Amino acid sequence: RTDSDRLWESLMELAKLGATAKGGVNRQALTDLERQGRDLFIQWCRAEGCTIRIDNIGNIFARREGSDPDAKTVMAGSHLDSQPTGGKYDGCFGVLSGLEVIRTLNQYNITTQSPIEVVAWTNEEGCRFPPCMMGSGVFTGELAFDAMMARTDAEGVTVSDALDAIHYRGSDSVSPSEIKAYFEPHIEQGPILEDTDTTIGVVIGGLGQKWFDLTLTGLEAHAGPTPMNLRRDAMMGAAEVTQALNRIAFDHQPHGRGTVGCMTLHPGSRNVIPGQVKMTLDMRHWEPEALITMGQAVAAAVEEICQRHGLAYELTPTADFAPEYFNKECVDAVRDGAEKLGLSHMDIISGAGHDAMFVGRVAPAAMIFIPCKDGISHNEIESATPEHVHAGCNVLLHAMLNAAGT
Amino acid sequence: RTDSDRLWESLMELAKLGATAKGGVNRQALTDLERQGRDLFIQWCRAEGCTIRIDNIGNIFARREGSDPDAKTVMAGSHLDSQPTGGKYDGCFGVLSGLEVIRTLNQYNITTQSPIEVVAWTNEEGCRFPPCMMGSGVFTGELAFDAMMARTDAEGVTVSDALDAIHYRGSDSVSPSEIKAYFEPHIEQGPILEDTDTTIGVVIGGLGQKWFDLTLTGLEAHAGPTPMNLRRDAMMGAAEVTQALNRIAFDHQPHGRGTVGCMTLHPGSRNVIPGQVKMTLDMRHWEPEALITMGQAVAAAVEEICQRHGLAYELTPTADFAPEYFNKECVDAVRDGAEKLGLSHMDIISGAGHDAMFVGRVAPAAMIFIPCKDGISHNEIESATPEHVHAGCNVLLHAMLNAAGT
Ligand SMILES: NC(=O)NCCC(=O)O
Ligand SMILES: NC(=O)NCCC(=O)O
Repeated sequence: RTDSDRLWESLMELAKLGATAKGGVNRQALTDLERQGRDLFIQWCRAEGCTIRIDNIGNIFARREGSDPDAKTVMAGSHLDSQPTGGKYDGCFGVLSGLEVIRTLNQYNITTQSPIEVVAWTNEEGCRFPPCMMGSGVFTGELAFDAMMARTDAEGVTVSDALDAIHYRGSDSVSPSEIKAYFEPHIEQGPILEDTDTTIGVVIGGLGQKWFDLTLTGLEAHAGPTPMNLRRDAMMGAAEVTQALNRIAFDHQPHGRGTVGCMTLHPGSRNVIPGQVKMTLDMRHWEPEALITMGQAVAAAVEEICQRHGLAYELTPTADFAPEYFNKECVDAVRDGAEKLGLSHMDIISGAGHDAMFVGRVAPAAMIFIPCKDGISHNEIESATPEHVHAGCNVLLHAMLNAAGT
Repeated sequence: RTDSDRLWESLMELAKLGATAKGGVNRQALTDLERQGRDLFIQWCRAEGCTIRIDNIGNIFARREGSDPDAKTVMAGSHLDSQPTGGKYDGCFGVLSGLEVIRTLNQYNITTQSPIEVVAWTNEEGCRFPPCMMGSGVFTGELAFDAMMARTDAEGVTVSDALDAIHYRGSDSVSPSEIKAYFEPHIEQGPILEDTDTTIGVVIGGLGQKWFDLTLTGLEAHAGPTPMNLRRDAMMGAAEVTQALNRIAFDHQPHGRGTVGCMTLHPGSRNVIPGQVKMTLDMRHWEPEALITMGQAVAAAVEEICQRHGLAYELTPTADFAPEYFNKECVDAVRDGAEKLGLSHMDIISGAGHDAMFVGRVAPAAMIFIPCKDGISHNEIESATPEHVHAGCNVLLHAMLNAAGT
């Protein structure tokens, strides 16, 4: 059994970096605060005797050797970056559970056959630099290194410059072929486990995602003298696109999702018809075909709406991930762990993207979900109980030992 | 006849202050750039022998004495502040036409019976500090001085502090009872004069306005795992309110207007359901009853939409002006001027708010419109021809001489 208090204390310690007034965390990818989080994690891993590798996109790998020099590694991890108004558990729970597994093995002097490795992936959130899961995407070859290095935040800073600024551009080459199995513990970030009073979500896969940047361009004009029928109001278009996206998501239930998270109006004056609106679209689905259909339906809606309102537009994909179905053996190992530990469990689909979904394309992978309060995440009030955190970490220990052998 | 070149040169000189790359002007109310515009205007007026008065809200009055010491003043004017992406003519054309009338009277040594006075009203645009027409509103008692002094811009700066910062809080008391007649030349800011190839718009009045700030509060949550039917998405609400406002305006044609000019999403992350949206609503109509009906319809729509999406809201009025119908004699003087000068003219309703609409409530007032290119205003590409500017100024000269007597 892992040490419940030790894991909780580390979680709370890490949450101090970027702590917000409302009890959350603002520690966005490749900021100096996130650098502090990385430093602390490495310090803790070194204290456990781990060797550290950092790759070209800043992913951090902390390794505890096994007894078999030819064995592949059994890996666990998640991410240390947060949303601008994020919570304490999203990401950190996974990374620190991996560390707690190593601490537990050290404490009880257990030697595993395979090495045990904990990873902290770069820029999982994707809110500062889209897309999400950038570090695991580059690691697995799903995202092109050069293209990702050139991605910019809202201030125009590139990933490349941000990585250098915090001194986390590494030179270690770590290969997906080293991985025997990858497990990622995470809070559910949705309401299902709590609603059904279940402790462990055995994650069978995750929704595919399509993200777009959309710019609508009309004609800036005076809100008073410009007759309604002569307007080219970019905001009228943006409102209709928002509604279309939502309708299309509702048309694809139970798995469809549609969200407009960002919108900027130009010039942004109360008595001026907006000449330009920039907005983001996030859509998701579990079935590859349905996700494609949704993407096409949104593109058609944008075209029709812009035509009708006399608007020009630019619709640029910023992320496009197919749904991921996890490896059967890894999923079974998670279910088996929950079973053996006498924890209530259910199979579940992840609505959020996770690094495990990229890793799963190049190596056996699965995830372990625990409930979070009211299903809320990407919010400062995100909350999870010490009991659930402990339970999830123990399922991880079980699954990793199972895969690593002793 | 006024001097066409002299007026045009002054307009172009003033347009250098806050000139933007696209040929427009950004000289927002009570900024240092607007202070420079005020200084230049005063310098020009002093050069014509005018005496300057500045009142407690920073309105500037430049006076040329008449022959009759008991006569009330005949006034012309408009404003020197601009939109963030405004044009060269909106406001300045009116102020500088008034100055050009004084220059012409001086040039030809004409003595009027009544004094002639040019006024530059403070913060007509209302984009930095709502509401619009703040200076004339305070002058006429339509807006409460103390309340206006406490109004803040997006950075939290008060009108009071901004006024002090540019040293334009005056101590002269100027009374509406001094005014015999007020004329305001302005670009139409709409497409009608150009469409009908008419040089002079004889403005019979202006649309009433209702402005609101609206805050919609839902629940910030993750865009992936949060099912569509469990969301409290503030942006879904904002999109529907935008559509409702537009529909209500379309339902009240030909005079109804509805515009959402500003919208801010919180937290503004692409994979987070917005927990809060702040937006502005601008609605207008020519008939007092219809404007009230529109306001009620929008309030009812906001209530219904928020109810349906589980959102809380705050709907705060920031401006509320009844339609204004101008004084018959003043309107006739404008029409007569256009007629005598052989200029094509038509009666027209102003879609924009103007200081004349407040002045008209306490003294006889009217306005003179000239065409602007493609009817576009509140846009850097705003444009008017020297011929139309000259024509408008000559109608002003005629109307003012008519009212002032020689
Ligand atoms: N788990 C998580 O919050 N991932 C961020 C990427 C996403 O939006 O799904
Ligand atoms: N004339 C003008 O642009 N006024 C600004 C106030 C309004 O929005 O009507």
